[in-house]
Formats: sequence, C-alpha cells, structure tokens
Amino acid sequence: MLSEKEIQDKLKTVKGWERMGNAIEKKFKFKDFVEATAFLVKVGFAAESMDHHPDITWSYSRVTLSLTTHSANGLTQKDFDLAQKIDQIG
Amino acid sequence: MLSEKEIQDKLKTVKGWERMGNAIEKKFKFKDFVEATAFLVKVGFAAESMDHHPDITWSYSRVTLSLTTHSANGLTQKDFDLAQKIDQIG
Repeated sequence: MLSEKEIQDKLKTVKGWERMGNAIEKKFKFKDFVEATAFLVKVGFAAESMDHHPDITWSYSRVTLSLTTHSANGLTQKDFDLAQKIDQIG
Repeated sequence: MLSEKEIQDKLKTVKGWERMGNAIEKKFKFKDFVEATAFLVKVGFAAESMDHHPDITWSYSRVTLSLTTHSANGLTQKDFDLAQKIDQIG
C-alpha cells in the first residue's frame, strides 16, 4: 500500500482523478451511449492486460471509474499505472 | 407511467428483477470480467436498438442493472420490454 505522501505525489502524475478515501475516481462524459461503450471496451482491454479492474458506474453517456486495490485495502502502484493507461485512452 | 397494479403484474413476467422505488433492478454474477463484458456488450446492443438504456454498476464479474424511464419519472412499458430482452441475454 502507498503512503499518503506517495499518493499525493502520484496524484500529480494523472489527469482529473480525485481521491475518494481508499480509491481514486474520475468522471467521464461522452457524446452518447455508443461512445461510452467504445471507451469502456478499451478500458476493459487495458484492465485485463494489467489484471487490475476499475469499479464502474455507467448511465448512458456518463461513466465514473473508481480504482483501488481491494487485496491491499488501499491504493497501490497498480491503481496509478491503470489510471495513466486510462488517461491515454479517453 | 405504469400504475402500481400494472407494475406488480409486469414484475411477474420478468425473472429476478426487484422493485427499487421508481426502478427495477437485477444483479448478475459472471465467471470473470471478460464474461461480464460480453454480457454488457449484448445488453448495449439491445439498449441501443430500443433507445432505452439501463443504469449500470459493474465491479469485475458483478453487474447490477437498473431500469427506469427518467423522462416519465417512473416505470413504463419500455422498462419491462428491455428487462424481458435482457432476460433472454443472460
């Protein structure tokens, strides 16, 4: 698990992610449902390849991704690696 | 918007959907993330073809779908049509 200092430093390396307790969260808004689907399919491929998966809420064109490492009960490097990957996607 | 009596009658025509205020909700559990993705892609095609979309929460292999008609501020025939379609998918 990352220390508070490490978390604060790493938050500066990702775009638009907010700290929410044990997780970091980012909200996305797309043109429509189809565009949101396309984004989530790409996120899904990244998540599978990293064996680390976001928690997702999805309502039509609005998607919220939440990253945490359940097994560590907190934030780890894996969360920030996936956040950076997602930042490259959309 | 459907009457309470109509909602109760229609709930008997769908499988595993629970009434949650203005919505009906169903929880799904899959083998893994890939199977959950496959299911949601199929749900997405159905939703687009019906121009009616579920609200989704998705955590790895667990998916919850919630149906309501936001424009009617309640449940309509569209919600039950989509629920029946989803029942045929997974």
